[in-house]
Amino acid sequence: MVLESFVEGRWKAGVGDGQVVRDAVTGDEVVRVSSDGLDLEGVARYARQVGGPTLRAMNFGQRAAVLKQVAAALDARKDELYLLSARAGSTRRDATVDVDGGIGTTSVYASLGRKGLPVGSVVVEDSQEPLGKGGTFAAQHVLTSPHGLALQINAFNFPVWGMLEKLAPALLAGVPTVVKPATQTAYITAHAVRILDEAEVLPEGALQLINGSLGDFLDLLGGQDHVGFTGSASTAELLRGDPAVTARSVRFNAEADSLNCSVLGPDAVPGTPEFDLFVTELVREMTVKAGQKCTAIRRAFVPAAGRSDVAEALVDRLSKIVVGAPGVEGVTMGALVSTGQRDDVRRAVDSLAAAGRIVSGDPRRVEVVGADAEVGAFMAPVLLEVIDSARPEPHEIEAFGPVSTLLPYDDTAGLLDQIARGEGSLAGSVVTHDRGFARDVVLGAAPYHGRLLVLDRDDAGESTGHGTPMPQLVHGGPGRAGGGEEEGGLRAVYGHLQRTAVQAGPDLLGELFGDK
Amino acid sequence: MVLESFVEGRWKAGVGDGQVVRDAVTGDEVVRVSSDGLDLEGVARYARQVGGPTLRAMNFGQRAAVLKQVAAALDARKDELYLLSARAGSTRRDATVDVDGGIGTTSVYASLGRKGLPVGSVVVEDSQEPLGKGGTFAAQHVLTSPHGLALQINAFNFPVWGMLEKLAPALLAGVPTVVKPATQTAYITAHAVRILDEAEVLPEGALQLINGSLGDFLDLLGGQDHVGFTGSASTAELLRGDPAVTARSVRFNAEADSLNCSVLGPDAVPGTPEFDLFVTELVREMTVKAGQKCTAIRRAFVPAAGRSDVAEALVDRLSKIVVGAPGVEGVTMGALVSTGQRDDVRRAVDSLAAAGRIVSGDPRRVEVVGADAEVGAFMAPVLLEVIDSARPEPHEIEAFGPVSTLLPYDDTAGLLDQIARGEGSLAGSVVTHDRGFARDVVLGAAPYHGRLLVLDRDDAGESTGHGTPMPQLVHGGPGRAGGGEEEGGLRAVYGHLQRTAVQAGPDLLGELFGDK
Repeated sequence: MVLESFVEGRWKAGVGDGQVVRDAVTGDEVVRVSSDGLDLEGVARYARQVGGPTLRAMNFGQRAAVLKQVAAALDARKDELYLLSARAGSTRRDATVDVDGGIGTTSVYASLGRKGLPVGSVVVEDSQEPLGKGGTFAAQHVLTSPHGLALQINAFNFPVWGMLEKLAPALLAGVPTVVKPATQTAYITAHAVRILDEAEVLPEGALQLINGSLGDFLDLLGGQDHVGFTGSASTAELLRGDPAVTARSVRFNAEADSLNCSVLGPDAVPGTPEFDLFVTELVREMTVKAGQKCTAIRRAFVPAAGRSDVAEALVDRLSKIVVGAPGVEGVTMGALVSTGQRDDVRRAVDSLAAAGRIVSGDPRRVEVVGADAEVGAFMAPVLLEVIDSARPEPHEIEAFGPVSTLLPYDDTAGLLDQIARGEGSLAGSVVTHDRGFARDVVLGAAPYHGRLLVLDRDDAGESTGHGTPMPQLVHGGPGRAGGGEEEGGLRAVYGHLQRTAVQAGPDLLGELFGDK
Repeated sequence: MVLESFVEGRWKAGVGDGQVVRDAVTGDEVVRVSSDGLDLEGVARYARQVGGPTLRAMNFGQRAAVLKQVAAALDARKDELYLLSARAGSTRRDATVDVDGGIGTTSVYASLGRKGLPVGSVVVEDSQEPLGKGGTFAAQHVLTSPHGLALQINAFNFPVWGMLEKLAPALLAGVPTVVKPATQTAYITAHAVRILDEAEVLPEGALQLINGSLGDFLDLLGGQDHVGFTGSASTAELLRGDPAVTARSVRFNAEADSLNCSVLGPDAVPGTPEFDLFVTELVREMTVKAGQKCTAIRRAFVPAAGRSDVAEALVDRLSKIVVGAPGVEGVTMGALVSTGQRDDVRRAVDSLAAAGRIVSGDPRRVEVVGADAEVGAFMAPVLLEVIDSARPEPHEIEAFGPVSTLLPYDDTAGLLDQIARGEGSLAGSVVTHDRGFARDVVLGAAPYHGRLLVLDRDDAGESTGHGTPMPQLVHGGPGRAGGGEEEGGLRAVYGHLQRTAVQAGPDLLGELFGDK
């Protein structure tokens, strides 16, 4: 069975055998994915000729109302998405992060669109800028909808959230979306789109879905279009080097995996709440989605003097993790998305281990509950330790699975140097109750991060955690993390709009934009 | 004589013969340009180890004060820059646009930095975002200085303004600059840098200058660095395709040439002030800097019924242009920057003429005052007309000289379609006293423009003109124009900073950022 794509308002399967997608737990075939034979030029044309005009004819309030309906439609049938997610190795907790996280993000954008955007469909920035002393000439910056489409190219790990966090700002901006999910979990994205189609909540042409290869789709894109990418640095490089971006200035936003860090403060010795918070957060980041999160903690910096305490506590906590089939009683960590992915992670662990040692977990051996450890894509959580700070591996090699590396630091300056060696991350955290230390780390590490969390006994109760992107907050990071900026509340909507400085008489500017 | 570069705080000439730069008027050798033998790794290291820390140790107010001194130092010796500019073919009016324009831009940024930026060196955006109902967890977006350098790669046409409009926001942002001017006019940029060096107004390492090839300099750049480019689309493509950008996410901003349009409203018939304004503006844009401006009007849209009136008026006005050596009595248009540039423009005119006809001016014959028409890079202003709206040439071929093309339109919808065929421009204008028409063109053309001017009898007295980027306003444009965003007031400063969402308890956030 070839998974159907949603193109030009209809469901249509690609031809040929397609690429086989297997159940992460049982190894059974789930579906085949192919875009062969689909009219991709037709997809672009439909987005431009139907989706764009339809969305641009709506005002911000109407678009926000669509998002509200999108969230409601998915919420009503989210159990179906949980069930499918289990086939990709996700426990219920993992699926919640993806599905409920995506629905929540959509709801937040619906609310931001309703409350934070003006009447009409043009955003007016700041007040008029006078450009002459006589008061006859002025300027106003406005944001308008480009006449293009938003192509989103997503990672396998968040098939629902990944689509929705990109769809919401694009839709609010009046830009039709074409989704290209990762093949490995395309069936989950496709089901979410089907739910939306069946609920009839989407304006015509607002959303299309291409399962399988994009072929030459980028050749069809130009300066009015947007490409939002989440995935590996190597694919980001390939896309960003395409003439669509380099020659035709397609707007391009990338979120790539990064070597995110978490720092334990020198004050947070065993017995302090912060010590426990650090351990709990690290174990959570290693095990949720089996560590397959672009924001997961890869580098855990601990004071040199305290590293054996931390290692001991982590070994203890990790020993309680139960790996197994999602849904089976007692299981606390599911499978990786595929055996191929697991093999990649094992190789990365080998490279990291060469720079130090494995503290906990065997990358090639794991006890599994309710499934076959070899057929399914299972792996034990692996904690490593690298003492030699001259080694490049922990700052460069990302094992995209349940893997993290402990690194010791001596003082704040040395710590900041090590943090910088990650060359840009999506998220970082510092767990401390020492405000001076928190300040030094935040200010020193900020240029290398899109998001930083200070976790302590006072905010832990309400903290959303190291690894959770929030729709209100910028998601992205410099350098290795892709240099992008997603979410961040209305910033993400503005990022889809074209900013234009309009110069005219103040009266005319007022007439054009004053009521907007 | 090889032009000296300013590297690691010292003036140093490259070795070898270098590339010969000739006087645009006399053909005499002005200087030779070579970066061979310069230690470019040393330049990057000096920027990172000296310039960055020096600037980051200053607060916004101190950096703004530097800019004020920069403007004053250049203003005191601007006559020297005018004289040098004449060797590049610039009349006094042309040189004023570049030199005084650059000084004015620097002053505006000095003022924005003093008045618009907070105490300290961190920009705090918006108010705290509560992330929990208990009031113990919140977030704040802050902007901090990256630990990198700003490389600026400039076009030949604005050797002073081009450097200053990029230097000012970078310096305010605490980022050291490395300037790579276009070889053809590098001696003018170099003299401006020498003035600044002799005035001792620059913090150590804040500015370096590489005259000649950049060699492998991009290989040294990463995610904390910024490249600002102005120039041709083909060079923009090359730079944007470099692994520095595609793989290491160097921040990249491009301003490329574009097929900017000006529109004459149907109401603006002969005898109206708007008719005259349109003609005057078009002639000015064709002749200032001999049309070598990235914002110059290349496509002049006129109502089909009125095109012969417009053509007639333009022919009359263009016949009064006196081409010749800058400084010679009566000369109203100078030379192009080089005979090579003139030959490029002639070829572009040939291609445009094949799609229509030349209305005024012979691209290969010009009467010249005070110089030899063949030895100097002189060219008559050339007005073309293309009637067949199916022809692609006027929307795709840019003759980067004193050249513009008249294009007829029948109605607003058809006009907007034609405007869109330019695929993104830096600047557009509409000359009309009909508010409804102005509104339709502004809203319809905004997605394709970084800046739009509505010119009429009421604002003409204070209008800054179609072709003048303003430091307060966004300069850049989508698609063919490079997809960048420069200037725009403090936006340009923010564009150099890293945005980070900091999550913590509200008290800690207040302590960290409340006073900033």
